[in-house]
Amino acid sequence: MDSRLEKQIEFLLTIDRLKQIVRRNYLVDASRFENTAEHSWHLGVMAMILAEHANQPIDTAKVVKMVLIHDIIEVEAGDTFAYDEKGYQDKAEREQKAARNLFGLLPEDQAGEMIRLWEEFEDSDTPEAQFANALDRLLPLLQNVHSGGLSWKEHNIHSDQVLKRNLPVKEGSQTLHRLVTGIIQDALDRGLLLPPENV
Amino acid sequence: MDSRLEKQIEFLLTIDRLKQIVRRNYLVDASRFENTAEHSWHLGVMAMILAEHANQPIDTAKVVKMVLIHDIIEVEAGDTFAYDEKGYQDKAEREQKAARNLFGLLPEDQAGEMIRLWEEFEDSDTPEAQFANALDRLLPLLQNVHSGGLSWKEHNIHSDQVLKRNLPVKEGSQTLHRLVTGIIQDALDRGLLLPPENV
Repeated sequence: MDSRLEKQIEFLLTIDRLKQIVRRNYLVDASRFENTAEHSWHLGVMAMILAEHANQPIDTAKVVKMVLIHDIIEVEAGDTFAYDEKGYQDKAEREQKAARNLFGLLPEDQAGEMIRLWEEFEDSDTPEAQFANALDRLLPLLQNVHSGGLSWKEHNIHSDQVLKRNLPVKEGSQTLHRLVTGIIQDALDRGLLLPPENV
Repeated sequence: MDSRLEKQIEFLLTIDRLKQIVRRNYLVDASRFENTAEHSWHLGVMAMILAEHANQPIDTAKVVKMVLIHDIIEVEAGDTFAYDEKGYQDKAEREQKAARNLFGLLPEDQAGEMIRLWEEFEDSDTPEAQFANALDRLLPLLQNVHSGGLSWKEHNIHSDQVLKRNLPVKEGSQTLHRLVTGIIQDALDRGLLLPPENV
């Protein structure tokens, strides 16, 4: 096997571990927590299906690729719970290091390409990254509400926390942000979320 | 929510069940079986990384989309084990029906688009479909050999069965097919596969 292909296979075998990274949200049927590989797949299909709702014209294929690789760093850096303020303090540093290590397994040109795509997602400055980030917020919201708010209840989450968490959806899609605010209001009415704390 | 977006969300919630469809191959670390959502994610990244090895120039983005949706029918039709000859008898019919039901949840234009993409994968007549099918064979082979051949041993699989199963890899990529034959020979030498039955 030539060394370029060898590096590519080594990378592909290593990222198998993303299937072991457990997230804090449940599957829609509430049977168990979701893992990050499944989450990434779901986002990829979501990008294909919801692309028309982006605020600006987007390169859908780029969004699909971006969401497929956006969490690979968790193989080394782990998942940081959305409402864990402490975990967020060193998140960027841990993830930068993980990106260099993991994507660095690839041939140099591909490593650079993957790191740039991941950084674009993180910076959320382009229409594609803003839409990808919108989906990354919307999907667990949908899962949380359809699994009876189990994850929210376990962590005593208030509606204003979820509203704040989902504010970036607006940058990617006004349409999906309207959907989000409706879902949160409905979840609050049904008692799946605690009332707002800071109003 | 307008009815178009409603249909799209309904589809996206339904396919969450792909995370519950258990395959017969183990994760690389042999800790548990893989599910089909994880498998589909892994293939998507694999397509991004290995595209250069396709026999013919391919539209990589199309391959990525194809592999992300190629197994969604399993939400209804279940997974058919690669070496289950009986299961393969009515596989096509079961899967056609599942494709109509599942993709049929989407708005009509998108349903048609998804069914065409799925059928292209199944027919394996285009360079993109041939490469996607090559990856769909190569990935579990890599996982089987790196998890110590556990799944092969449990089902008493012979090397010639695996060679035959992986023959279509050649149509998508001569390079990856050479890799495959090397891996199978090595697995045979290490006793992970039974000797050929039909020679």
